[in-house]
Amino acid sequence: MTAYAEIAAHFGRIAALSNAIGILDWDNATMMPKGAAETRAESLALLQVLRHGMITDPRLSGWLPEAEADNRLGEWERANLREIRRLWTVQTVVPADLVEASSKAVSACEMAWRQARADSDFAALLPKLQEVLRLQREIGRAKGEALGLSAYDALLNDYEPGGRSAKIDALFDDLAGFLPGFTEEVLAAQARRPATPRPQGPFPVDSQRALGVAMMGVLGYDFERGRLDVSTHPFCGGADNDVRITTRYDETDFTRALMGVLHETGHALYEQGRPQAWMNQPVGQARGMSLHESQSLLMEMQACRSREFITFATPRMRDAFGGSGPAWEAEALWRHYTRVERGFIRVDADEVTYPAHVILRYRLEKAMIADELPLADLPAAWNDGMKALLGVVPPDDRLGCLQDIHWPSGGWGYFPTYTLGAMTAAQIFDAANRAEPGILPAIGRGDFAPLVGWLRANIHGQASRWETDELLTRATGRPLDAAVFKAHLRRRYAGEG
Amino acid sequence: MTAYAEIAAHFGRIAALSNAIGILDWDNATMMPKGAAETRAESLALLQVLRHGMITDPRLSGWLPEAEADNRLGEWERANLREIRRLWTVQTVVPADLVEASSKAVSACEMAWRQARADSDFAALLPKLQEVLRLQREIGRAKGEALGLSAYDALLNDYEPGGRSAKIDALFDDLAGFLPGFTEEVLAAQARRPATPRPQGPFPVDSQRALGVAMMGVLGYDFERGRLDVSTHPFCGGADNDVRITTRYDETDFTRALMGVLHETGHALYEQGRPQAWMNQPVGQARGMSLHESQSLLMEMQACRSREFITFATPRMRDAFGGSGPAWEAEALWRHYTRVERGFIRVDADEVTYPAHVILRYRLEKAMIADELPLADLPAAWNDGMKALLGVVPPDDRLGCLQDIHWPSGGWGYFPTYTLGAMTAAQIFDAANRAEPGILPAIGRGDFAPLVGWLRANIHGQASRWETDELLTRATGRPLDAAVFKAHLRRRYAGEG
Repeated sequence: MTAYAEIAAHFGRIAALSNAIGILDWDNATMMPKGAAETRAESLALLQVLRHGMITDPRLSGWLPEAEADNRLGEWERANLREIRRLWTVQTVVPADLVEASSKAVSACEMAWRQARADSDFAALLPKLQEVLRLQREIGRAKGEALGLSAYDALLNDYEPGGRSAKIDALFDDLAGFLPGFTEEVLAAQARRPATPRPQGPFPVDSQRALGVAMMGVLGYDFERGRLDVSTHPFCGGADNDVRITTRYDETDFTRALMGVLHETGHALYEQGRPQAWMNQPVGQARGMSLHESQSLLMEMQACRSREFITFATPRMRDAFGGSGPAWEAEALWRHYTRVERGFIRVDADEVTYPAHVILRYRLEKAMIADELPLADLPAAWNDGMKALLGVVPPDDRLGCLQDIHWPSGGWGYFPTYTLGAMTAAQIFDAANRAEPGILPAIGRGDFAPLVGWLRANIHGQASRWETDELLTRATGRPLDAAVFKAHLRRRYAGEG
Repeated sequence: MTAYAEIAAHFGRIAALSNAIGILDWDNATMMPKGAAETRAESLALLQVLRHGMITDPRLSGWLPEAEADNRLGEWERANLREIRRLWTVQTVVPADLVEASSKAVSACEMAWRQARADSDFAALLPKLQEVLRLQREIGRAKGEALGLSAYDALLNDYEPGGRSAKIDALFDDLAGFLPGFTEEVLAAQARRPATPRPQGPFPVDSQRALGVAMMGVLGYDFERGRLDVSTHPFCGGADNDVRITTRYDETDFTRALMGVLHETGHALYEQGRPQAWMNQPVGQARGMSLHESQSLLMEMQACRSREFITFATPRMRDAFGGSGPAWEAEALWRHYTRVERGFIRVDADEVTYPAHVILRYRLEKAMIADELPLADLPAAWNDGMKALLGVVPPDDRLGCLQDIHWPSGGWGYFPTYTLGAMTAAQIFDAANRAEPGILPAIGRGDFAPLVGWLRANIHGQASRWETDELLTRATGRPLDAAVFKAHLRRRYAGEG
């Protein structure tokens, strides 16, 4: 066997392990009875230790240079080695005791966070969050040293390979300069319009589920390779060729679960569209979290909040719930689905105000990792940032800096990918429609094949063949900038263009 | 760390892996979309290889003798070492290439069996089944050599530690002498009684499920540590403190799914009742397959087909389906649940005729492993045995020797545990009622606490602390014999005693 063949077989086994972990994680969130929590935690911890051991297998330090010197390899194989070296490097440079300490600190902090959030008591969380932050900074420094990056960029790099804060600063500063004024403008225009009636429930869960399943089918989701279930926090997970999404239903409002399903379907289409030949190799994985989020937001925000889609979907929503009257007109539903509102909570935010929530968190976490903002000052800095970016100040930390699990769970460097994803979605959707002008009209007929076909060819099927910038440049003609996203917001919310 | 502590930690990790495998197997049968089959097979194969590697870890050959010489250990620890040595021995003596060959032969044979059974074409299965048999024989010989057992006894030993065919021969010969005449007698008496009306459906799945869940609760199943789902072949699986059972529903007949749920609940109560302190150690596992089957049959056959239970359950069945009239009287339902019929199919057999199906298979598989019956002669030998034991001859092999997956899937040595379980169930239930005469009257009030309390103390909570014979002797006063089982059948089906 060549060194490359050894590596590929080895990473095939790692994928088999990751797929097992993916299904156990899914089961955790959807099916597992409460009393099994400890048993499951032990199984997952063991499998993660085994996976870490396989990724840092000492044989790779011999195989990798030998394979990298092999000039018979094709382009995908070379890209696979690039991805494998990245994985191997970041996992090898972090000492095992640091990984373990971080994992324990996170477990303790997540538990403390649930209580602290309920009590709106930041002081109670502070010592445990301080420990998580300290260990994240150490991990970031260890990885950063190996990669020639700052600690923050090294953490970011795990979610967004190739992502750099210098670029994000420029993109986010651009948006931060545009959004506050634009939001004012949109809210003023919205206030001038007569109130739109909204559909009144109850909306039975079974009917919501059936509508969601039907719409997943319309988008092109493959039910032979996935499922739809319920969980408290919706997600897309599972395994290769077993891409499972979840939602949660509210019987007083069907519109959120439906759009949530379409969002997760966007993630799932990316996963289902990865190339079979590379499915179990690192080069066959999704390109990164901002690209992943771009695929969910492309479906949810770009395609499915378009007038075209809402017009197509309206009679189906009416049929699902026996709806009639003015609240069930396409225009009313579209108004409902594009309503803008300033709020305290990120996950409830609309397309226009969401980036402000993200920019705030990005700036704060970058400062905390760089030791420029003491954790104790976080609540005040949070509220100042909310005031500046959104014009509102949360009445307590529960609705402020305690709302998200990301920091307690050690997900530092993740937040920017949400808004990078939103910008990327706009840029990709715009490029797809330029390349194939039939895409949007087809969506208006409930035909997603032209869109998904274009995405398969240009995004999904490319997996991790290229670095993110290269992939985006090949697909849209240029690297990411804020222009298309801003134009999209202006068009949709200010009636321009 | 002492050698014992090293071993215990090691087997704790093995349990964490086994629990992961248990959930993935469960998911396979209940939730997994079709297209994920290949991905899942790879994950399971990897985890099984990893588990095999851990059980045969070379460090155990140093740790085991050291721990066994440690005179500070308590009784449970010593029993744990006994179980671990047994596991380690049988897994270490089988060469890895034999394990792999067998696993491949089984995969191929299972696939061929599905087609061969559909076509009732034994000849088509013969070569693949021959290969499975040959490898099973080799595995049995390898294990038998290490354990001082015949090949068949060594295979049996994997399902029924300590089980020996010499003992089973005596027990089964006893039964085989009794059952044909007894069955005649029961059928004749049954034919003399007027026909009993049976409840007419449809019985909606939701109502069947609700009734099943309610009855699981009556028996004492802990829903915080398990779930009820649907699968083609009902089973009890999952993980420690996560004991999941399944059933399948037939809208024209609720009685089978209900009794199936009670059967699996019996298995589940055993699993849920294992001692927490030893949950993840070999000594904390169920004692063997005949004990396991005894717990399901104790619930299904001994407790839940009693007049007491059926009388308690009848109004609940009526309420579940809005039933009324003569078919919904307790006596009619009891008659339905104790009806005897000669048939070709084991899984459809009643309590009286079931042992004949098992004795036939046991005798045949023992002869085949010993090379005393050529596989090509199996169909004829099967039909001869059916004639002798049951008085019926299947019209084709689909209803004959092709009906079960056990042999194609490499489960040689498993069959006898079904009837050993039935006999054990009778003996344990009898002993429990002698020890606590309130048990059966309580069941008549829907109170299973006295029965389950006794089982927890005498069976479930003992796990693998004792060998099977010792456990049974401690619980019932003597090792297994056929007397109580025969007396039970006479009492229930011939109105004696």
